[in-house]
Amino acid sequence: MSDIKRIGLMTSGGDAPGMNAVIRAVTRSAVVENIEVYGFLRGFAGILDKDYKKFTYSDVGGIMERGGTILRTSRVPEFKVPEVRKKAADILKDLGIDVLVIIGGNGSLTGGKLLSEEQGIPVIGVPASIDNDIAYTDMSIGVDTCLNTVVEAMQKLKDTASSHERAFIVEVMGRTSGYVALMSGLAIGAEAIIIPEVPTDYDALAEKMWDERKRGKINSIIVVAEGSASAYTVARHLENRIGFETRITILGHIQRGGSPTAFDRILASRMGNEVVKAIKDGDFDVMIGLSKNDLIRTPLEKVLSESNKLDMEIVKLAGILS
Amino acid sequence: MSDIKRIGLMTSGGDAPGMNAVIRAVTRSAVVENIEVYGFLRGFAGILDKDYKKFTYSDVGGIMERGGTILRTSRVPEFKVPEVRKKAADILKDLGIDVLVIIGGNGSLTGGKLLSEEQGIPVIGVPASIDNDIAYTDMSIGVDTCLNTVVEAMQKLKDTASSHERAFIVEVMGRTSGYVALMSGLAIGAEAIIIPEVPTDYDALAEKMWDERKRGKINSIIVVAEGSASAYTVARHLENRIGFETRITILGHIQRGGSPTAFDRILASRMGNEVVKAIKDGDFDVMIGLSKNDLIRTPLEKVLSESNKLDMEIVKLAGILS
Amino acid sequence: MSDIKRIGLMTSGGDAPGMNAVIRAVTRSAVVENIEVYGFLRGFAGILDKDYKKFTYSDVGGIMERGGTILRTSRVPEFKVPEVRKKAADILKDLGIDVLVIIGGNGSLTGGKLLSEEQGIPVIGVPASIDNDIAYTDMSIGVDTCLNTVVEAMQKLKDTASSHERAFIVEVMGRTSGYVALMSGLAIGAEAIIIPEVPTDYDALAEKMWDERKRGKINSIIVVAEGSASAYTVARHLENRIGFETRITILGHIQRGGSPTAFDRILASRMGNEVVKAIKDGDFDVMIGLSKNDLIRTPLEKVLSESNKLDMEIVKLAGILS
Amino acid sequence: MSDIKRIGLMTSGGDAPGMNAVIRAVTRSAVVENIEVYGFLRGFAGILDKDYKKFTYSDVGGIMERGGTILRTSRVPEFKVPEVRKKAADILKDLGIDVLVIIGGNGSLTGGKLLSEEQGIPVIGVPASIDNDIAYTDMSIGVDTCLNTVVEAMQKLKDTASSHERAFIVEVMGRTSGYVALMSGLAIGAEAIIIPEVPTDYDALAEKMWDERKRGKINSIIVVAEGSASAYTVARHLENRIGFETRITILGHIQRGGSPTAFDRILASRMGNEVVKAIKDGDFDVMIGLSKNDLIRTPLEKVLSESNKLDMEIVKLAGILS
Repeated sequence: MSDIKRIGLMTSGGDAPGMNAVIRAVTRSAVVENIEVYGFLRGFAGILDKDYKKFTYSDVGGIMERGGTILRTSRVPEFKVPEVRKKAADILKDLGIDVLVIIGGNGSLTGGKLLSEEQGIPVIGVPASIDNDIAYTDMSIGVDTCLNTVVEAMQKLKDTASSHERAFIVEVMGRTSGYVALMSGLAIGAEAIIIPEVPTDYDALAEKMWDERKRGKINSIIVVAEGSASAYTVARHLENRIGFETRITILGHIQRGGSPTAFDRILASRMGNEVVKAIKDGDFDVMIGLSKNDLIRTPLEKVLSESNKLDMEIVKLAGILS
Repeated sequence: MSDIKRIGLMTSGGDAPGMNAVIRAVTRSAVVENIEVYGFLRGFAGILDKDYKKFTYSDVGGIMERGGTILRTSRVPEFKVPEVRKKAADILKDLGIDVLVIIGGNGSLTGGKLLSEEQGIPVIGVPASIDNDIAYTDMSIGVDTCLNTVVEAMQKLKDTASSHERAFIVEVMGRTSGYVALMSGLAIGAEAIIIPEVPTDYDALAEKMWDERKRGKINSIIVVAEGSASAYTVARHLENRIGFETRITILGHIQRGGSPTAFDRILASRMGNEVVKAIKDGDFDVMIGLSKNDLIRTPLEKVLSESNKLDMEIVKLAGILS
Repeated sequence: MSDIKRIGLMTSGGDAPGMNAVIRAVTRSAVVENIEVYGFLRGFAGILDKDYKKFTYSDVGGIMERGGTILRTSRVPEFKVPEVRKKAADILKDLGIDVLVIIGGNGSLTGGKLLSEEQGIPVIGVPASIDNDIAYTDMSIGVDTCLNTVVEAMQKLKDTASSHERAFIVEVMGRTSGYVALMSGLAIGAEAIIIPEVPTDYDALAEKMWDERKRGKINSIIVVAEGSASAYTVARHLENRIGFETRITILGHIQRGGSPTAFDRILASRMGNEVVKAIKDGDFDVMIGLSKNDLIRTPLEKVLSESNKLDMEIVKLAGILS
Repeated sequence: MSDIKRIGLMTSGGDAPGMNAVIRAVTRSAVVENIEVYGFLRGFAGILDKDYKKFTYSDVGGIMERGGTILRTSRVPEFKVPEVRKKAADILKDLGIDVLVIIGGNGSLTGGKLLSEEQGIPVIGVPASIDNDIAYTDMSIGVDTCLNTVVEAMQKLKDTASSHERAFIVEVMGRTSGYVALMSGLAIGAEAIIIPEVPTDYDALAEKMWDERKRGKINSIIVVAEGSASAYTVARHLENRIGFETRITILGHIQRGGSPTAFDRILASRMGNEVVKAIKDGDFDVMIGLSKNDLIRTPLEKVLSESNKLDMEIVKLAGILS
């Protein structure tokens, strides 16, 4: 049993639905164990600015269902500078923070790993990223809510698509990962899914759509990951090649919002509690992950040396089923 | 009591959620009165192409809850040519269509009015338009569902907006009318609403946002009607003037989809039934409208000589409450 | 122009979605006019207990989208005693409350009317009641959200109903009014709607369902208003008469919750602002109402001498369309 | 590579959202491999009644998003009689069905296992059950949608709960399993969760609620699995012991409906496709399961010899976090 007295808690990077549920679960699980929780605002920026708040049991009531993060978040590029990390570590030590709990994606966890390696600050990570690109967890927090948001939006498009003779192009999040585009495209039965992991052959796409129209299919939905092309580019390609009228939807940050789904609330609650169990076990510099229905702890170093790759079988499946 | 035996039914122009509920209500109310219903596909195009289907009571089961229109819709610019309307009228007469029921917006109703005036085809209109720009009805079909779709999307944005320090710009439908932008902006508490009816002073907007940031407000949502400016234009203005980082959402045709709300289902059911009552009363060349909780019938000529203007009191109110 | 300096604000009776949006709109509109707002907790109970809070512009931020009421609500039967009302009036006078704004249903407005008549406290009412039973307004606050909640729930039931050969019975709110049952039943295409305003002939109902099953209809949804019969009673009648297996849903207070719809947010915002306009005009002892798309003010006495009756045409319509 | 030419497909037992997505994926994956699909209506009853339909690629368009099952479902108690299974097998053989694909829960899979063992009909199972009580799969189809339905309903209750001083009791599905009650209770932060797996101490529950009220907590949500007690029983216990006013919600079959979530659509699509892969591999008498992010095949015999037990750690967690 460790003798941890006070932990820091922060959310960092792109926000993801379910972050608040982690905050609640970490706080309440810690309080039950007589561990104090300091919540830092705006991720690493809040450490550097000493901008924090002590969290009690009731401070985190009524937040599980809210999208976003009450701790707010930011990207702090200067955290790549070792001196800046040194400063953050000094502040954490001054504040008597025994462990820093970081809720975020690969970038934020990397910041945490460096804090630990260089500065000796014990760190525990909780994976939150709508791209599901973090290794050693079946699912990251926020993925499930994001996918449902995208699918619900595209479902509405499907209604109106059937009323017209048009192609609809939907641009979704994913700078380096086509995960959201692929999974939502599969879930909606999109005619085409354009992702960074697979080169786009616009001639073949235009031909496919032309063939389908000849066979009587009068509408189509094309999903494109922002990291692959913009919806406008896709539209121009199609209009140039086959003269299709297209309509564009860009979902933007809507994909990061919304009340978390049951899955994200449960996953977040379990992971947040597991953080405190790991602390009690003295198990640091790990990330909590989901494997089957169990929670696992994997060293951050191992987590960050890999990344979840897109399952090419699913790319193929989406082609078969659409 | 008129001796109408067979009516034509069509949806036309931009589709609107609730059109299927009108189709269902007209059909079932007609069948009960021993009136046959011919549904024409793709609006006026279906008349010109003789593309229609006889609708029975059970043909319209299970459609009320579906977005879009099972009759599909299209815009038929050639209907502006009198000879084309003559051809349509001849086809309708050949088919023994006694009355043509048109579900659509001002443009579609104008086509109907001309069919009646020039060609003697009795016409009854049902107002469907997400812009709520049709006169002599408190609400058109589809408006309520559209507003809820936009508000739900923006609500998700509000979650994530609170997590960041950014301005979010949402582009919504409305080529000539700011109705959707104004009402959704009011319902979400948007910081700014940019609409065609009011000139945009970007200097004043930038200054307002700058002031709010100084007072501690860290995020904002700006709604813009597509007919006023594109979201990208607004973003550029703000970035140039005050260097704000902005994020963009373009909802597109999502706004025309979705299962209709209770309000749209009820309004559509009532209006569809009123169509058949008007037919039985021999009351033609009118549009069904909602006035208070009652249904009214107004001559198409009168309806089309006016249009619903935006209520400037609500523009002011949105400014006070945000 | 009146010289009102301070107003009291309360929600009372059954809560309704949109009450928070009224609170926000009254507060912000008042603050802009340099009028102070005291929010009393738990309706009339908060006056009697001197349990209140001064509301500023920012106190009401982020509440519009929340169901329920941040002022909470209660039923206070002892308010029927004149001495109790006298005590309340004395407290209001001591606190320097110039006008009391009451958001609630017929019961709460009656309490307000008595406060005004007997004790000379100027009162303004805002109609909030999911039963839409308040006169002189086309719609009360909360109705639209409630109907959508019920329709969405029943829509899910319709999915599963088509998979089985069963009757599903849904009990909805409405002790004296069948409004929610009727309108939601119309919007979902329920096979039968059982409401207090119309006597139920279970023999005829059983026969109708039996006939429909013979004609191939394999499932049905029956909506019942709690004031007419319990779902269990209806089930027993059907099982006894025709041996149908039934399944029961009782929605309960779910019908009072949920984030308000666009309609309720807009109506609430406009009515809240109109309260302050009425105050400035010195127009007291009135209720704000919606008539067509305009806001009207009607003396409370007139409002309370009538009540919205169910439209029997809609009862008939529901029978035709189902 | 097997030489399967024709497969049978059926849904059986309680319906679950996502069944249609499995039907679509099996059909389309089979058609691509030149395997014919016969869909049997109402589960085993459709086999016995020779009530089936050949499914083509386009027959299963537009069904993924629909709740329920287009094949309908039923419980067929007489299938417990060996002679009845013999008759079903004979019919399947007459129809040239090479493999029977069964989408359902433990009961339906048991029927399938017997068909295979006794009658030599090759069978492949797909786990669908909102109780998530099927072994050898992390998740069954329908679980995720069901949980979200329950959580969304209870979230609405939470809104109104905060407006009152009352306890709300929600009865959810689960005759032998507390899974839905436990997971939804965790996801909503319920004050108490009453499940068949844990004996209920009403004295302790009443005392806990009494203590919480003394500490200022004014409302509570209690979730009860139907297999443990009825909501009315729980209400009576609490009212007798501590005089709390309670309000009841019984969700009923709403829990089986609704458009499937992204998770259920994706899982169903993948499992449906895996069925056809297993067929091509000649891998029969197995159930498709999800393990981590991979699909696995487990002999039906093994699957049916175990059952998913409730995770008692989660029972404890729900207690800590509420």
